Amino acid sequence: MAALFGGVEGGGTHSKVVLISEDGKILAETDGPCTNHWLVGSDKCLERINEMVSEAKGKAGANPQVPLRSLGLSLSGGEQKDAIKKLVEQLQTRFPQLSEAYYITTDAIGAMATATDHGGVVLISGTGSNCKLINPDGSEVGCGGWGHMMGDEGSAFWIAHQAVKIVFDCLDNLEAPPHDIGYVKQAMFDYFQISDRMGLLTHLYRTFEKSKFAGFCQKLAEGAQAGDPLCCHIFHKAGEVLARHVGAVLPKIDKSLFQGELGLPILCVGSVWNSWELMKEGFLRVLNQAREKEPRCSFSKFSLLKLKHSSALGGASLGAKHVGQALPLDYTANVAVFYTHSF
Amino acid sequence: MAALFGGVEGGGTHSKVVLISEDGKILAETDGPCTNHWLVGSDKCLERINEMVSEAKGKAGANPQVPLRSLGLSLSGGEQKDAIKKLVEQLQTRFPQLSEAYYITTDAIGAMATATDHGGVVLISGTGSNCKLINPDGSEVGCGGWGHMMGDEGSAFWIAHQAVKIVFDCLDNLEAPPHDIGYVKQAMFDYFQISDRMGLLTHLYRTFEKSKFAGFCQKLAEGAQAGDPLCCHIFHKAGEVLARHVGAVLPKIDKSLFQGELGLPILCVGSVWNSWELMKEGFLRVLNQAREKEPRCSFSKFSLLKLKHSSALGGASLGAKHVGQALPLDYTANVAVFYTHSF
Repeated sequence: MAALFGGVEGGGTHSKVVLISEDGKILAETDGPCTNHWLVGSDKCLERINEMVSEAKGKAGANPQVPLRSLGLSLSGGEQKDAIKKLVEQLQTRFPQLSEAYYITTDAIGAMATATDHGGVVLISGTGSNCKLINPDGSEVGCGGWGHMMGDEGSAFWIAHQAVKIVFDCLDNLEAPPHDIGYVKQAMFDYFQISDRMGLLTHLYRTFEKSKFAGFCQKLAEGAQAGDPLCCHIFHKAGEVLARHVGAVLPKIDKSLFQGELGLPILCVGSVWNSWELMKEGFLRVLNQAREKEPRCSFSKFSLLKLKHSSALGGASLGAKHVGQALPLDYTANVAVFYTHSF
Repeated sequence: MAALFGGVEGGGTHSKVVLISEDGKILAETDGPCTNHWLVGSDKCLERINEMVSEAKGKAGANPQVPLRSLGLSLSGGEQKDAIKKLVEQLQTRFPQLSEAYYITTDAIGAMATATDHGGVVLISGTGSNCKLINPDGSEVGCGGWGHMMGDEGSAFWIAHQAVKIVFDCLDNLEAPPHDIGYVKQAMFDYFQISDRMGLLTHLYRTFEKSKFAGFCQKLAEGAQAGDPLCCHIFHKAGEVLARHVGAVLPKIDKSLFQGELGLPILCVGSVWNSWELMKEGFLRVLNQAREKEPRCSFSKFSLLKLKHSSALGGASLGAKHVGQALPLDYTANVAVFYTHSF
């Protein structure tokens, strides 16, 4: 059988594997749970990856005992060099039949590699959040992406946390809520299946799972769609803080990225972007403010793009490139523009 | 040997055990690490308590195989009824020689029981933070105390987290810092023994220990004492938010608590109070604001008190009371007033 190239998209809640042939054809896909090694530990992370890839090999009609030519991993939490080096060493030792070569990068870089090789801004808002500018020369500038303990502003975790915190502070009389907490409080009791605030402690500590906690965001999106003012308020805030991430990298964006037909391409990754309409007003207001602070910057238009295929594709492409193989990717088929704005 | 009554002070960083005789005499004391069951899990929490009590029995010349008459536990994290019930059941099953009877309450209630039986406000700022009003009729009103995932505002953890977050946001260009981050950034690298921000991730996730993270607060207190403006700023903010906790319970305080010689007694527990001078201005300003919002409230004076003995004493007293034994405690010898203010 011809050489197989694998790619992994590793998220804080879901993961995906694709296997690609030399000519860029997708031969198999598999899904799995969270593979963020900071969240589930490296042992579980690697076991889950091995399982997903083995399953994909089976689906592609390949022998699971024959290693892939390369495996490119686009992982949330795939930033720290030492940790990445250890992950690769463990993959080689524990799963020699998995792949001949490995390349690990972040979910942001993997997503960008799926969409284009010209660069742009990746703005992730899924379980966690992150913003990464990739200039056409390949240089990177980041903002955020430090996980829930250090912010994750604008992510599903952050939105869920904001909501819960507003309820707690209101009931404590510590801080007046911006709107009535009735809907959010009841939704919180229902989602976590608790009858009082004490019941939330185990979800926050003993049995904490980021993806479970972040999943509450979905209920808040439903509340906002039904018009609950507090839910709407929180998504508005999420739009604002996500725009602040773009504002943070704005001074470093190469001029050429403003000059395409779409204006600045912002690749939006993660399920919170399904609630774009709820975040739009806050996002536009804050991004416009950031623009006005950089008067010499030629930023006058932007487009929001979303991936039509998993960023596991970009991971596979980067992994192949790492072993000297260029996989032909049809970038235009991989992305769709869902919003364009001119200031 | 006569009946022995035990008390435990269980903190987020340190713990203490005292053994007391029927006539209120302290016979032995022992120290140990964190016994917050939310932080270390109930198994480790209970093992540590058993070890400390056994050691104390030895020190008091008692047979470790003979159960105490009662053990009163004043635990940070000792609030949730179901969790407490389980802890008592596990103590009875796993350590039958430990004590005949158990009584578990929060660190706030244990501290108050050490200082007075007339009630007042307990304001904890140690590893975590919490505020509890205990009215003379025994009724309780709380604010905060939900742990680091939900705030812990004004605690050592919170102060350390604020500092780290300001450094991260500044380096990300996400938020301009209120003052130069030079000292705090270097102190952070030194304390956590890291060379870049990536190095902090393991301290935040894989090897997270709340007491270790909160320990960074000590370095910030040193910075503030040496005049670093950012450190001073953060302690000022801590003073403000701690005062907001008192403001939150202010409308519920029984009038009689304002009328003593000391004005409202606020029992200050935890090592962050060693930095009172750094927090004073913010604390007074916000408490005055809260007072002005309650014009019909007769709050015109308050005193800050600190314990001269461990709140394990109060725990022992409550545990003894639970089995019908009143231990004579000399409250005046247990507290000292360290600040008094009239508005």
